[in-house]
Order: sequence, then structure tokens, then C-alpha cells
Amino acid sequence: MYPNYLVKKFNSYLYKILADYNELPKVLNKAINYSIRNGGKRFRPVLCMLTAISLDKDYKNVLPTACAIEFIHSYSLIHDDLPSIDNDDLRRGKPTSHKIFGEDIAILAGDALFAEAFNIIIKYQDVDCDTKLKVIKEIAEASGAKGMVSGQVIDVFYTGKDLSKKKLEIMDNNKTGKLITASIKCSALICKASEDKLKKLIEFSKNLGLVFQITDDILDITANEETLGKTVGKDEILNKNTFPKIWGLEESRKIAERKVKEAIKIISKLDINTKPLIDIAKFLIDRKA
Amino acid sequence: MYPNYLVKKFNSYLYKILADYNELPKVLNKAINYSIRNGGKRFRPVLCMLTAISLDKDYKNVLPTACAIEFIHSYSLIHDDLPSIDNDDLRRGKPTSHKIFGEDIAILAGDALFAEAFNIIIKYQDVDCDTKLKVIKEIAEASGAKGMVSGQVIDVFYTGKDLSKKKLEIMDNNKTGKLITASIKCSALICKASEDKLKKLIEFSKNLGLVFQITDDILDITANEETLGKTVGKDEILNKNTFPKIWGLEESRKIAERKVKEAIKIISKLDINTKPLIDIAKFLIDRKA
Repeated sequence: MYPNYLVKKFNSYLYKILADYNELPKVLNKAINYSIRNGGKRFRPVLCMLTAISLDKDYKNVLPTACAIEFIHSYSLIHDDLPSIDNDDLRRGKPTSHKIFGEDIAILAGDALFAEAFNIIIKYQDVDCDTKLKVIKEIAEASGAKGMVSGQVIDVFYTGKDLSKKKLEIMDNNKTGKLITASIKCSALICKASEDKLKKLIEFSKNLGLVFQITDDILDITANEETLGKTVGKDEILNKNTFPKIWGLEESRKIAERKVKEAIKIISKLDINTKPLIDIAKFLIDRKA
Repeated sequence: MYPNYLVKKFNSYLYKILADYNELPKVLNKAINYSIRNGGKRFRPVLCMLTAISLDKDYKNVLPTACAIEFIHSYSLIHDDLPSIDNDDLRRGKPTSHKIFGEDIAILAGDALFAEAFNIIIKYQDVDCDTKLKVIKEIAEASGAKGMVSGQVIDVFYTGKDLSKKKLEIMDNNKTGKLITASIKCSALICKASEDKLKKLIEFSKNLGLVFQITDDILDITANEETLGKTVGKDEILNKNTFPKIWGLEESRKIAERKVKEAIKIISKLDINTKPLIDIAKFLIDRKA
């Protein structure tokens, strides 16, 4: 079962943060609210909160960082959906940002969300200076030239061209995996996890990140459009490099299952409350959206 | 005279930083290098370095932050030039990023530069933890939803519509002023300027920021296209809200001159080496590009 109670807690914190932007130019405030409130699973914030819980800490301790990561995720979706990138009209069942506000405001709203991620951590994340810098470093690296952007560039550049299995995994790790790792690692840093726990949680998160992207690719083929909230079959139309395209659907499923088992194995021996993390790993395999 | 010797010093540091990106996907590395190496005056880095010099510190102390601010400036130019925003084909006499690499890569290269600004400060800026966080805060605020992006949104949204004189100043302060203030303030923070000096330098920078935008607006009308390196008369064609449009050309010149005098007056009484800052303020009035 997905921890929907955490989604609720997270959203109520997130919406409070949004009040900080009431004085912005109206159209910018609207565009920010539109994307942030069009919520979805809040998978990264939930991972952040579950990591704190697994380490016997209050999830409230990591809410600002969870929020910052969700801002970055939202910014990346706005830019990905743009006509010159994935050209998507629908996101979570609603028109994409540029469809509502125009490309100019969509680009700028994405830029704003990215910058605000850092402002939220600086303003609200209650933690010592060194750890705060580590958290900022992790997030800037995960989303930067060697992280998310790099994955996106490989995605865009190799669309319609052949991509090796090795490069597919690098692409997915950069595009999706690193921000998922950041969600778990930043939480572990704030919660002062021991070196060993931190290391294992990072390994766990790397498997999870890949599984998330593989199941995303699979859902693009097999999902119900209404449940998924976006156009199904888009990857094939665009001739995108995905796990099912390169490995086949059945093999992709098997890889995802194997990675989930690996992830679970990695954390099983840790002296932490592993159940919430194991549950979320298992959830990924069965997810419908 | 413009301190071109600092531009040289800065560029040589900047180009060393670019080596960090050699392992990126080629097209991303090319796009980053293309925009960063298409240099211009490096006005913000120069301000950053001059502030250190005025405080009797080595300009080398602030090079990483100067570099981060230039990355942010470059990112903002790439996004501003996009077809859906200012639709510019030329920047500093060369085709704009999207003309060379396509809109998708241009958007992503901008995103990468923004993230890397933070990575550069975290990795290279040698200063205590508290000050480093203050520098990051200043830069994230200057470029964020309440800073640069907000100014851009007002610019885009009010293009072709009437804008009040008050709102024009808010737009310019956000769009241009805040990153110029950040250049001076961050340098003063790193150089441990006293509270009083910091306050006066910030006031100085606010005047300077506005003068920079006013003279930019004036140059769009009066400059030689070759010297300026971009299409002249673009603001009028797009019906942009500028100082000359709202105040008239002569009055705009007078306001700029008055602001420069104010800026000089503010720092004159400070017990620092004021000459380099006074010179750069005077330079703005006479600049040809």
C-alpha cells in the first residue's frame, strides 16, 4: 500500500510554503501553483519522509528538503513537457503548463521553481550549517549538468537513434535516479544516519531509481490512459529509447523485479525500521500510475 | 576605463572551471562552452572582483562566486533569447544558443548552467560555512521567483501593455538589479566587510543596477549594431517597456546620470579604496556596448 497519509501531510506543508509566493506577479504565482498543486504521488517527498521514519526520526524534520526536491521535480516536468522537448499536452490528466500559460511563462515558472528549491532549504530546513551545505550540494549535483540535465540531453539527443544498454542505464540514472537518490540521501544526512547506513541507503536508492524509470517506461505502454493521466504510447510515437524498446517488455519487467529484490536485500540487514522502505520498493513493481 | 585586465584574469579562471564539464554529453558540453565563452564585458564578475579590491582583498578570493554569477547570467541570456521569449537571433555578434543547438538543448543548457552556479560555489568558494550559505542565499534569491524570474515575467507579460513608472523600476530591479547587487554583496560578505560597509555597498549596487538597465535600454536605441553585437531597435519593434519608452530618451539619460552621482556619493565617505568602484560607475554612463 502506498503511504497516502504521508502525501496528505506533505501536501499540507507544501501548500503553506506556496503562500510565500502570493506577492509575485499574478501569472507567475498562478503558474507555480498550477504545477505544484497538480500533485501526483509525491514519490520523492514520500521517500524523503519514509527514510526519516526508517531512521526513527520525525518525518517533519525533512519536510523542507522534501518540498525543495518536489519543486525541482515539478520544474523538470514543466521543461520536459515543452513543445521543443517532449511536446506533451497532458500531465496528470490536466493540460501542461505551456498549454495554459504559454511557453514563455512555462519556461520562467520552471526556472523560478528551480531557484526556489534552494531558497526553501536555506530558509526552512532546520539543520546545522555543514549538513545544510551537504544537502544543497546533493540536490545541485543531482539536478545539474552531470545529473538530471545530462540525462535529459541524452534522452533528447538519442531520440530516434540507437542507444546502447549501458548508455540507457546511464541516461535513466541521470534523468531520474539521481534525484531519487537525493531524496533518500538528503533525508539520511539530516537525520544523521551513520556512515554505514548512509552508504546502504544510497545503494538501495540507486536500485529504486532505476526501477522507477523502468516501470515508468512499462506504464507508457501498458497503462490505462485515464489512470496514468498522460498520453499512453508516447514513447513509441516519439521513438524514445526506453527499457521496453531496448530490452523488450518481459525482460524489462524481470530487470525491475530483480532490482527491487537487490534493493530490499541491501537494506534488510540494517538496524533500522526497514518495513516502510521495503513496502515502497514493492509498490513500484505493482504500480498502475 | 574598463578594467580589462580583470576580464582576462576572470576568463582564465572561468575556462579552467569549464574543464569540469569535458565528460558531459558532447552536445551539452558544446552548448555550455559556446555560451560561456561568448564573453562580453563580464560586468558582474568584474564588479565582484572590484569589490574585493576596494576592500583591500585579493580578487582571487571571490573568483568562484564571480564565476557562479556569470553562469547564472549566461543561463538567463539563453532562456531570454528563446523564440517564445525575446526571440533573438544574435547575442554578442554570434547566433544565439537555440539557433545553433536547437531550442531543446538551449533550454537544457540554461538549466545546467543555473544548477552549476551552485555547484561551483559549493566546490570552489573557500570561505566558512555560514558565509557560504549566505552567498548561496543571496544568489538564489536574486535569481529566483522574487528576483530575476519575477522581472522577466513582468517584462514578458507587459510587453505591448502600459507599465507604470513605479512598476518599470521594480521590473528592472528584479530583472537586472538584484544579480548586480548580488555580485557586490556576495563579494563583500566573503571579504568580511563591516556591517556599515556592507550596507553602503548594497545601496551603491542598487543604483548601479538600475543605471545598467537604463543604459542598456538607451543602447538598444542609439548603439552601433556591430559594437553592440545584437540587433538594435529590438525593444521598439517588440513594444517593450523600457526607460526611454516611458520617460523619453533625454530624461532617461538624466536619471542614469543622477543615479550614478547618488551611487558615488553613497560610497565616497567609506573608508575603502573607492576609486575602482567609482570608475566602473562612471563607465556605465559612457558605455558603447
